[in-house]
Amino acid sequence: MKKVTVIKIGGNIIDNPTELEQFLTDFSKIEGYKVVVHGGGKSATKMAQSIGLVPQMIEGRRITDAPMLDVAVMIYAGQINKYIVAQLQAKDNNAIGFSGADGNLIQSEKRNHPTIDYGFVGDVKQVNTILLATLLQSGIVPVFCAITHDKKGQLLNTNADTIASELAIALAEVFDVTLTYCFEKQGVLLDSEDDTSVITEINEALYAKLKAEEVIHSGMIPKLDNCFNSLSRGVQKIKIGHHRMLQSPDVLHTTIIL
Amino acid sequence: MKKVTVIKIGGNIIDNPTELEQFLTDFSKIEGYKVVVHGGGKSATKMAQSIGLVPQMIEGRRITDAPMLDVAVMIYAGQINKYIVAQLQAKDNNAIGFSGADGNLIQSEKRNHPTIDYGFVGDVKQVNTILLATLLQSGIVPVFCAITHDKKGQLLNTNADTIASELAIALAEVFDVTLTYCFEKQGVLLDSEDDTSVITEINEALYAKLKAEEVIHSGMIPKLDNCFNSLSRGVQKIKIGHHRMLQSPDVLHTTIIL
Repeated sequence: MKKVTVIKIGGNIIDNPTELEQFLTDFSKIEGYKVVVHGGGKSATKMAQSIGLVPQMIEGRRITDAPMLDVAVMIYAGQINKYIVAQLQAKDNNAIGFSGADGNLIQSEKRNHPTIDYGFVGDVKQVNTILLATLLQSGIVPVFCAITHDKKGQLLNTNADTIASELAIALAEVFDVTLTYCFEKQGVLLDSEDDTSVITEINEALYAKLKAEEVIHSGMIPKLDNCFNSLSRGVQKIKIGHHRMLQSPDVLHTTIIL
Repeated sequence: MKKVTVIKIGGNIIDNPTELEQFLTDFSKIEGYKVVVHGGGKSATKMAQSIGLVPQMIEGRRITDAPMLDVAVMIYAGQINKYIVAQLQAKDNNAIGFSGADGNLIQSEKRNHPTIDYGFVGDVKQVNTILLATLLQSGIVPVFCAITHDKKGQLLNTNADTIASELAIALAEVFDVTLTYCFEKQGVLLDSEDDTSVITEINEALYAKLKAEEVIHSGMIPKLDNCFNSLSRGVQKIKIGHHRMLQSPDVLHTTIIL
């Protein structure tokens, strides 16, 4: 079974040109099939502010009204996505940038929440695995932004972590998939103040225990829930850590197993 | 030889939701291989103004400094491109949106003009015909915005008419190509004040005569120069007119022949 590396990068890399350049250099050297999923960083918020929109958040999720969706599409699918594609092309990776609308690669449905109107936010329904596998087999390096569509003409803002895990799950039908989340820390920490307290391996039992003890809390919970969901649905291996871990297997990081 | 239809749409369609919807409906019904290239319309200028940039034009071409390039990438490759892709997907056309950086589909070089610094403007150097042909043969409908790259990491703003003609020329190596320019008029007019004065067929001799008589002037000249260049480089047929001509062959338009 061919291997695929799916890597999600967040705002801390997107917002820092030096970090982004280093990540793209390291990523471009990864052998074999690979996919990158990028979040948005601060530039969508900045752009929204500069044109007079007031960003709203509920439970850590951006409320996406129509003007905010426009900004997200511009910045994520336009500015950031094409910048990354151009840099990877310069590093001889044959990158193509995609939203979920392109090739109907990621179809979602508008979130229907009983009490909160999230606006134009989509939850992933279906990945076009056949087209994605064909692209990888043709030597293409897909670069995904966190915009999807409902196949009825509506673009939708979608959580980038979820996109990475849904792509990994879909690809696991065909390939041996490693999913890597790059973020600002070295991994899942026992003490959020101590960067060296990385938990090198975590399984469901340890996760349940650490969650009960509130050692693991807030933003890390949806991230890890995503991870265990992906593992139970066929993804082989998940890693969380700083993108420096792409440079050497010796760099401290967390591996998540069932 | 398989047929390919390459259609370029300009700002008059992009800026008018009703016209765009009608165009996309008609375009989605075209059988066989097809490509759409879209210009930018007024939204890039509007966005530039709303964030305090002052657009500059020399000889009908936008001067693209770094902040203006950012805006062009956001609006052309992001907002407009993904909107069109999502609408075509809703109409069961398997559209994928591309800049020239994606898949290295259109490589250009930064314009080096002896007296005018156009900024980040690229002239097309090379089309990745093999990848483009493979995409068409896989049932993909490519949607191109007018952004290219230099393969060294720099995105570049490029004239959409030129992109359409360069794609048509490249595809003419493999396919029987018809290139159609949709704009606000019914075709090339004998009298620019009289919409019914369409020249239904124009060849190089007639073009030279009408240009000398100043019947054809200003913006129509680079358009027609592009057309004759494309025909001499293998494109089978070129049509210019209002997008209503997609609805029926009876709708008045101009056909350009060698």
